[in-house]
Amino acid sequence: MPHFLNTSADGFEAAFAALLSMKREDAPDVDAAVANIIADVRARGDQAVIELTAKFDRLNLTTETLAFSEAEIEAECAKVGAEDRVALEMAAERIRAYHERQMPSDARWTDAFGAELGWRWGPVSAAGLYVPGGLASYPSSVLMNAIPAKVAGVERLVIACPTPGGAVNPLVLLAARLSGVDTVYRIGGAQAIAAMAYGTATIRPVDKITGPGNAYVAAAKRRVFGRVGIDMIAGPSEILVIADRDNDPDWIALDLLSQAEHDESAQSILVTDDADFGQAVAAAVDKRLETLERRAIAGASWRDYGAVIVVRDLAEAADLSNRVAPEHLELCVADPEALSALTIHAGAIFLGHWTPEAIGDYVGGPNHVLPTARSARFSSGLSVMDFLKRTTLARMTPAALAAIGPAAERLAVSESLEAHGLSVRARLDRLNEGGA
Amino acid sequence: MPHFLNTSADGFEAAFAALLSMKREDAPDVDAAVANIIADVRARGDQAVIELTAKFDRLNLTTETLAFSEAEIEAECAKVGAEDRVALEMAAERIRAYHERQMPSDARWTDAFGAELGWRWGPVSAAGLYVPGGLASYPSSVLMNAIPAKVAGVERLVIACPTPGGAVNPLVLLAARLSGVDTVYRIGGAQAIAAMAYGTATIRPVDKITGPGNAYVAAAKRRVFGRVGIDMIAGPSEILVIADRDNDPDWIALDLLSQAEHDESAQSILVTDDADFGQAVAAAVDKRLETLERRAIAGASWRDYGAVIVVRDLAEAADLSNRVAPEHLELCVADPEALSALTIHAGAIFLGHWTPEAIGDYVGGPNHVLPTARSARFSSGLSVMDFLKRTTLARMTPAALAAIGPAAERLAVSESLEAHGLSVRARLDRLNEGGA
Repeated sequence: MPHFLNTSADGFEAAFAALLSMKREDAPDVDAAVANIIADVRARGDQAVIELTAKFDRLNLTTETLAFSEAEIEAECAKVGAEDRVALEMAAERIRAYHERQMPSDARWTDAFGAELGWRWGPVSAAGLYVPGGLASYPSSVLMNAIPAKVAGVERLVIACPTPGGAVNPLVLLAARLSGVDTVYRIGGAQAIAAMAYGTATIRPVDKITGPGNAYVAAAKRRVFGRVGIDMIAGPSEILVIADRDNDPDWIALDLLSQAEHDESAQSILVTDDADFGQAVAAAVDKRLETLERRAIAGASWRDYGAVIVVRDLAEAADLSNRVAPEHLELCVADPEALSALTIHAGAIFLGHWTPEAIGDYVGGPNHVLPTARSARFSSGLSVMDFLKRTTLARMTPAALAAIGPAAERLAVSESLEAHGLSVRARLDRLNEGGA
Repeated sequence: MPHFLNTSADGFEAAFAALLSMKREDAPDVDAAVANIIADVRARGDQAVIELTAKFDRLNLTTETLAFSEAEIEAECAKVGAEDRVALEMAAERIRAYHERQMPSDARWTDAFGAELGWRWGPVSAAGLYVPGGLASYPSSVLMNAIPAKVAGVERLVIACPTPGGAVNPLVLLAARLSGVDTVYRIGGAQAIAAMAYGTATIRPVDKITGPGNAYVAAAKRRVFGRVGIDMIAGPSEILVIADRDNDPDWIALDLLSQAEHDESAQSILVTDDADFGQAVAAAVDKRLETLERRAIAGASWRDYGAVIVVRDLAEAADLSNRVAPEHLELCVADPEALSALTIHAGAIFLGHWTPEAIGDYVGGPNHVLPTARSARFSSGLSVMDFLKRTTLARMTPAALAAIGPAAERLAVSESLEAHGLSVRARLDRLNEGGA
């Protein structure tokens, strides 16, 4: 049974607050183990990576086989059936087209004093993508991480993907190839993050590391942050669906389940202005849970964290959604645009009856790496911006310095930073001597 | 004596690598103390903040005096002299004009299948700025943090600034007023970060915390990250100056010293293609160090971390600069634009002889909060983007879903995510029945 809440009922605020503050993730504390692994890789390089891979992935590598060869990739890609290949190509093409529009512009202008100001964007030189092995080895995540990097102009793009016992998902390698990835290493865990951050004799270091992973990978990313850039640390997936009565309860049930099936810690919330419809959706979820392949996972998620919230009207639904700040927000109402204008905190919004969230996971075009755990209040999904950095530019003329330099000197003096002031003053004195 | 290096000399690579990997910051490990402070503030709210402020800042507050009153701010601002006020107003105006140009655009388009795609930007609802107390209580930093937040559209903007023994810098309060800050709390340290992140009965929580601080503040920001957004953790300041012989050695010396005087851990590097000029600058630095107010700090920084590197030509200078990825880069050469095109990693570039870095600290317009410790390889200075987040938008029509839905279903099946596939399939089936 999911949580049933009603904004008109006594005790709603307390129940909603409890829902909001529910701790869904109890990550094991692996920080000490990760610190040791990173230190080992920094000290012993390839040898440490090879030994740790033998230990954790039951795979014996050499410096020659740390990365897949071109021939190996070719052979794996050839195993992918035509239908899967076409689907993956469509996804890649649509993700690329969407992200190409995100490229920001450089700027340069001259102000009233003649000072030239501006900025320019440039890509990070090298990026590393972590791709989990085993069941959660998703080709779609390869596309979602690698394509924005290539669109941004990243020159060298590598993947670290563990292959426990040597098993690899051919679709992951095909996705890597379609995205323009240069090298795929068969390594994983904290040792892979350490190798990409610090480099080894065989693995060149990168400047930015993105991609999901288990508790070890997350802890390692936190530890190497500063040495390299990292993307967000993703938590369990979430969806909030706002739906009025004019929906097929089964469609909404499937949308809720498509988050719940990811993880027992995932959270699916339905907000509706019709109590009967809410009950109908809950019944439809139960019915689907009878047969769903991943019913153990989805059922646990729905039971522990699922919720049906009945509201007075859609404006109240938007208010609640803003307090949740969901990763995914579906607006299954007659006027989704109007409701969208009221929902100010969400990672991604899916508008109308014909936009199930799963479209966004694969082929919609927008990125599926999105802020979880209420962080949509202050952060955004993955984009080309994550692989770019901005350099600001300033160029004074003698006249511009004469106009604004005295104010800089004054503020430097007020902050007791004498050399700051003198560096301006020396130039102003030259100008006063007519020496420009 | 700073480090003298020459790219033509034997052992240059080793010496340069040593310079690059020099550990300049030895932050004390205050994490356990900070964890306790945060837990205390979460548990006891205002009372904990008041007790910790009495203990660390020797200041007795009540819930009524946690924040400055309007009358108190008014009275402090009245103490600021006309010249300082005018300088601060010019700085605020120029910073605002620069950052207004950074506002990104929303986008919405319809693709060939009729799918509507896009994104929109929105501000974080509330931001908190940390402003150190005492000597490093810089009004310019208030402007550099607060103005981008207001330009982004942040509704509620608060400052936490400790006032040890009750002492406050009137310029800080004037800068807060000029920037549109709503509330200034007289609290600091980890307790201020905790109060802004989690809220107390008196202090409402914010969504994003920015601003510099000591080791306690930095550790607290790391700990509350996730609950709120944070900006970068800034390290000691750095400058790299590329200068040819056609410069006044004293100007370049002052530019180097304007970083060195910040902190004994600051780093100033001159790269020149003329060995004699390099010696002349080093001599000019020594001469200025005889009289500079902060000569103890600047002298230690220059002695321990300063460097003069002689290169064969300016292209080699750009290569070295890219390996350093300096926070500040000054290009004092005949054609700074051409050299700028070669320098791909830098937080901010100052072009030509008339643009001392100090201009950028105060009145240039670009932000002075910039990536340190080589992180300009993958990150940018503070900007309006730090106070905005992006929501992606997707809206399928029945025809668009018919066109791209089957690929999504296929990929869902390949990833063993059945409910994902079914949420698409249920809608496609309706279409096939003619039910759109």
